[in-house]
This record gives sequence, C-alpha cells and structure tokens, in this order.
Amino acid sequence: MLNTFSNETIEALLHHRSIRRYKNEPVTRSQLELILRCAQQASSSSHMQTYSVISVTEPDKRRAIAAWAGGQRHVEQAPVFLVWCADLHRFDQAVAGAGGQFEPSLEYFLVATVDVSLAAQNAVIAAESMGLGAVYIGGIRNEMKKVAGLLELPELVYPVFGLCIGVPDEQPDLRPRLPQEAVFHENRYNRDAFGQTIEAYDKTYHTYASSRSGGTKDTTWSIEMRGRTKYPPRQYGDFLRDQRFKLDDGQEDQDD
Amino acid sequence: MLNTFSNETIEALLHHRSIRRYKNEPVTRSQLELILRCAQQASSSSHMQTYSVISVTEPDKRRAIAAWAGGQRHVEQAPVFLVWCADLHRFDQAVAGAGGQFEPSLEYFLVATVDVSLAAQNAVIAAESMGLGAVYIGGIRNEMKKVAGLLELPELVYPVFGLCIGVPDEQPDLRPRLPQEAVFHENRYNRDAFGQTIEAYDKTYHTYASSRSGGTKDTTWSIEMRGRTKYPPRQYGDFLRDQRFKLDDGQEDQDD
Repeated sequence: MLNTFSNETIEALLHHRSIRRYKNEPVTRSQLELILRCAQQASSSSHMQTYSVISVTEPDKRRAIAAWAGGQRHVEQAPVFLVWCADLHRFDQAVAGAGGQFEPSLEYFLVATVDVSLAAQNAVIAAESMGLGAVYIGGIRNEMKKVAGLLELPELVYPVFGLCIGVPDEQPDLRPRLPQEAVFHENRYNRDAFGQTIEAYDKTYHTYASSRSGGTKDTTWSIEMRGRTKYPPRQYGDFLRDQRFKLDDGQEDQDD
Repeated sequence: MLNTFSNETIEALLHHRSIRRYKNEPVTRSQLELILRCAQQASSSSHMQTYSVISVTEPDKRRAIAAWAGGQRHVEQAPVFLVWCADLHRFDQAVAGAGGQFEPSLEYFLVATVDVSLAAQNAVIAAESMGLGAVYIGGIRNEMKKVAGLLELPELVYPVFGLCIGVPDEQPDLRPRLPQEAVFHENRYNRDAFGQTIEAYDKTYHTYASSRSGGTKDTTWSIEMRGRTKYPPRQYGDFLRDQRFKLDDGQEDQDD
C-alpha cells in the first residue's frame, strides 16, 4: 500500500508498462466492445467526440502498417490492433446537416488530437483492468498518408497512433519517470527544477537501462532524448493540408 | 453488472461525468501528489514526457484564468485547479545537455499534445477513483498567450487545458455518447455509419437535453455542434510561433 488513498484503480495506473509480447489467447469481441465503451465515456471538448477507431484484422493490412511503423512485429502479432484517428469528418457532417459550416483550423486540429488521446487512454486503462496489456504505436505517423489510404480515411480524418492489445507474455521493469519536482509546478513555471533534478534522473535511468539490457546498455535519459532527434523528422503537413486542415492561423495572408 | 468482464475500474470509467460543483472540502497535498504520480505513469512517446502541470492556488491568478476561460466560476472555486501544458522546453534542455539540438516541428507539437492528454486522463481517473470529480477547461485556449504569460511559461511550452478537481457536490446525468457503430470501424473507415446513426442519436440527445434542462432545452447533438462553430475560432498560431514552434512542415520555402 503506497498511500492511504490508494485503491485498485490507482495501483493499476502506477504499474502501467507497455506490453509488446502477447500470449496466444484471443481478446474477445465483447471485451473489445467494452473497452471501446470505456473509451467513449472519456471527456471530449464541447462533446464533439472527434475521433474514430479502426480495428485492423486483415493480415495484409497489419503487415503493411507494421512495416511502415519501422518493422514492429507486435503490430502483426497482437490479438487486437487499433488505429486511433482524429476525426472531424463526422463533426463536419453534423454541422452541415444542421445548416452550418466550419473551418478546420489549428484549434480543431488540437481538439481532435486531445479527444482521441483521452479516449485511447481510457481504452488502455480498461484493457489493463481486465488483465490485458497494451502498447501505443506512434510509428504509424512515419507514413500517415499511406495509413490513411490503406484505411480509406475521408477528408478531415488523420491517424494519430496505433494500439496493440493482448494478454501479456512479458512483465518488463517499470521505466522510471522524471522526478515529480521536474514536472509539477506551483503558480508559475519553475525554470530551475529541471537543472536541479536531471543529474539524479539520468543516474536512475542509467541503472534501469543497464539492468533491463543485462548490462549491455550504457545510456541516460538525456542521451536517449538526443538520440530521438537523430531520426529524420516525421512530416505530414502536406497530407494534413490535403485533408483540408488549415494550420497556419494568424499567419499573414499569403498568395497560393 | 454490465458485462462479465467488468470490474471496479471499468464501472468507474463508464460512469464518468464532468463535475463543476464541489463540496467545501479540501483535496489534500498527498492526494494531489498521488494523482500526479498516476499521471506520470501514463505512456509517453519515446519516453519524452513532454508535459508540465502547474497547480494554481493564488486567487488573483485563478480569477484571471476563470475570466479568460469565459467566466467559468468553478475555475475560481475548485479546491484544485491545474493547468496542463505541453512542454518541449525540458526536452530541449536535455538534448542540448547531451550535445544535440532539435527543431520543434508539427510532429513535436502533436507528440506533446498527445503526451499531456494521456497524462491528464490518468489524473482524472485516479482522482475519480478516490471519490473526487473533475472537469477539463478547454476555455483557457481562448487566451493561450495570456495564460502563458501569467504562469511564466518559457519557450516551447504552451497551455493545453485546465482541470478542476474537488469533492463532487452534484451528480449530473450521464451524457449520451455517439453509437459505437458511428465511431468504431473494421479494416476501413465506414463512411455510411454516421448517416445511419445520426437520426437516432439526435433523438437520444434531445431527450437527454430536455430532461437535464427541465424541459426548457430543445436541441440535438447536430444543433449543438453547429452552435459550436458560431464562436469566433480560437487562434494561437502566432503565439506558438513566438514559442519557437514551426507548424508548416512540408510547405514550400517562404520568404520571411
């Protein structure tokens, strides 16, 4: 018992780890439907509910997405693989049906990205509470346009991340998080907090990485973060503009 | 019991409603710290952890934010009010500390928006599991720049939403969600699903709105969505560019 306020839900939240290896056991249709009901009950900006979820079961589509995501085999192997999409197409239809129209500005892009994230996190927690494990697949954004084509996404819809779900066949160590002092501020952003905590955190992370790799990995969080910047940046601005998004609000008018 | 797979966590997820009225009871410091530990345990893209949380306790700051958010009194009154920020400042410091550099492109904007959303949703679920209630405050984006100034946010940090937390002093009806068929697809986006379900959903929503308002509100979800588009759109592209974000990837090079 970590804290007198703790309970079953909190214990589950505190023990989250991403699961990439699954037992050869199915996730049932009624489990999946319940997970999605939990997702839909998450808060949504102005009740717009600007997201859609696509379950990918066809092996060819799984294979293609796994490759685009950088060769992540668990995308092929997971009992369930969901693609979570920000979806303003449905909102557009509803507004048009009520005689209105709207411009998909940066604010709508942000709203839909938040909406889909809140819903997906509810799905992860629901799945974990059933004894399932999950991992987000941000790698689908390597090829946002191809994923959208494969899944026949209409205008105003874009894939944000994938999610693998299955019965865990691994129990990785908990990955240490930043110290709370580095993340949590009071009344104003504390610019000194990070500098005061990074050395200790890098040491903690080094110990974790070393232990997890059987002593072969000599790294810190800072080194890992630098490594993250060496990949060519994902670019999907053109695709989003093709999908009708206007992300340049506030820019002075430009000739097209 | 809704389903044989159900459990305490799932029941809580399925009964989420936003709470805007709170009893005159405190949320303790150790409750808040536990809520934030749960938030930090959420998944994060490449373990970047690109978010910060600012607890606002100073009454003047609460008052200012409540007004900017459109006069939401619960922002002033809630025992706890948190501002959730997407934060690439810490990442930038870590990368620089390891001898690297990065460009805050649209992908980083999306990553940080997702990261902060996943963490915040964990916080909401943790809070609700303790018997607390919460409501997201998207209205702080009305005045993103002013909120950032008030909270002294550095470059590469932007406020995404607020969150009020307290002991519930209301129990509003559950707001009906879109039918699962409209949101959940298999292998390809089903463009017919929305049209097939919207009439029934608009009726369901009409009944809910009428009941909640004591019969005074005659609306549907579609009408509410149209109403949403009548507000002047929130614009913060200039502010984000001032914060060093480059949201125009893929655009042809432009003269500055």
